[in-house]
Amino acid sequence: MSKGVAGREPSRRGVLRGAVSGAVGAGIAVAVGAGGAAEAATGDGHLSVAVLLYDGFTALDAVGPFEVLCRVPGVRVTMVAREAGPVTTDTGELSLVAERAMRDVHRADVLLVPGGGDRGVMAMMDDTGVHEWIRRIHRRTVWTTSVCTGSLILGAAGLLRGLPATTYWAARPYLAEVGATYTPGRYVEAGKIITAAGVSAGIDMGLHLAARLSDTEVAKAMQLAVEYDPDPPYDTGSPEKADARTEALALKLLADSAV
Amino acid sequence: MSKGVAGREPSRRGVLRGAVSGAVGAGIAVAVGAGGAAEAATGDGHLSVAVLLYDGFTALDAVGPFEVLCRVPGVRVTMVAREAGPVTTDTGELSLVAERAMRDVHRADVLLVPGGGDRGVMAMMDDTGVHEWIRRIHRRTVWTTSVCTGSLILGAAGLLRGLPATTYWAARPYLAEVGATYTPGRYVEAGKIITAAGVSAGIDMGLHLAARLSDTEVAKAMQLAVEYDPDPPYDTGSPEKADARTEALALKLLADSAV
Repeated sequence: MSKGVAGREPSRRGVLRGAVSGAVGAGIAVAVGAGGAAEAATGDGHLSVAVLLYDGFTALDAVGPFEVLCRVPGVRVTMVAREAGPVTTDTGELSLVAERAMRDVHRADVLLVPGGGDRGVMAMMDDTGVHEWIRRIHRRTVWTTSVCTGSLILGAAGLLRGLPATTYWAARPYLAEVGATYTPGRYVEAGKIITAAGVSAGIDMGLHLAARLSDTEVAKAMQLAVEYDPDPPYDTGSPEKADARTEALALKLLADSAV
Repeated sequence: MSKGVAGREPSRRGVLRGAVSGAVGAGIAVAVGAGGAAEAATGDGHLSVAVLLYDGFTALDAVGPFEVLCRVPGVRVTMVAREAGPVTTDTGELSLVAERAMRDVHRADVLLVPGGGDRGVMAMMDDTGVHEWIRRIHRRTVWTTSVCTGSLILGAAGLLRGLPATTYWAARPYLAEVGATYTPGRYVEAGKIITAAGVSAGIDMGLHLAARLSDTEVAKAMQLAVEYDPDPPYDTGSPEKADARTEALALKLLADSAV
């Protein structure tokens, strides 16, 4: 490589550091939101986001919003599960580490419940201990949120009664069972509860939540930071756009990959 | 809830299982690709995808394509790192578990190298032991792939000389340093090497790769399976669309959140 860009050090050592320090050092005024009126539950001035992991959760449901929120100024994201330690996802091929056990988490400014495979979600829908923890945290959250079938878990805890909400496309009919009204959208905000549609919709909701926790400038910057300029090779991302054959195959792939 | 959908059991117990078994049991013909001509390296007939984790990688770079590929029939995704065990991401708030150590992985049908923060990527660009492993695996892959600044790691290993490639938007100028030519696109295919743009572009590449490993029907079904019908609240996902202020703030948020 011959020349650096805008005077950046062109050596390998400076590749990325150069890109960052170059822009930050260029004297461009940068406003960083400070979390607004939300009260910080961490005790250290940070806004705390607790992501509830459980055996059989779906990795991208948790990691999509995590990736957007973890860089919002003043926000600290913590993975929480029944026990601290590795928690395995719905296909059994990946584990994320929960930093803290539920019993040690008494406050969070934001609660986020990801969806999961049938087995994992049904176990959580039947777990009254988890429901009690969710209700306790929810009482003092600024935002209580879910991705995908995580909304059915919020619903089983009694949080969605009488509210508009969304969920995974294949689970839409079952929102009524927890007293919620299915409402179309990548995410649906009802009071302080935000539910996102399936899996990747957590990224869209994460950007919305970044704006709510900080401001739209930060949210727009986070969209660029994760280069979220989507251009999927197909247009089959919702049941309204996919044909019956694609829908049947999607359900088969989900069922066959579940453990 | 009054009635199930299409005769599904409406009880909580059957919520999701009902949705899946209902569709699969409906007699709809479902074709599942078998991996085509790719030789399986796992020894058990599966196509193996090795995702290389390292201290300071970016979570979504790995999990985006993981989520799409882990349900493709015949594909087995394995997280690999210098040592088996937890590997911490670039903000220090999350660890993913590597199932296997690099020294124990001698073959993979697909190699995927995620990007990461400056510190992590620069360490990998300087690590000749990692480069040797990458080159050894690459010799027999069907596809060698990267997301975000992962392409700079492939490049440092000597794999991108003379090839078109892409990377994270802020790192584009540095592709030339590893002998590659920056080429616009969510992903760029050059021979058996596919490089994706930043972070979330790994989802788009994952769908493309799903089609390559199986067929377009499976890829379309996986797009629906992860409900990838993106609708970001803003339109600032690339430097071509964001203004200078958003770009500067994005770089500041990245720098401030790095550990």
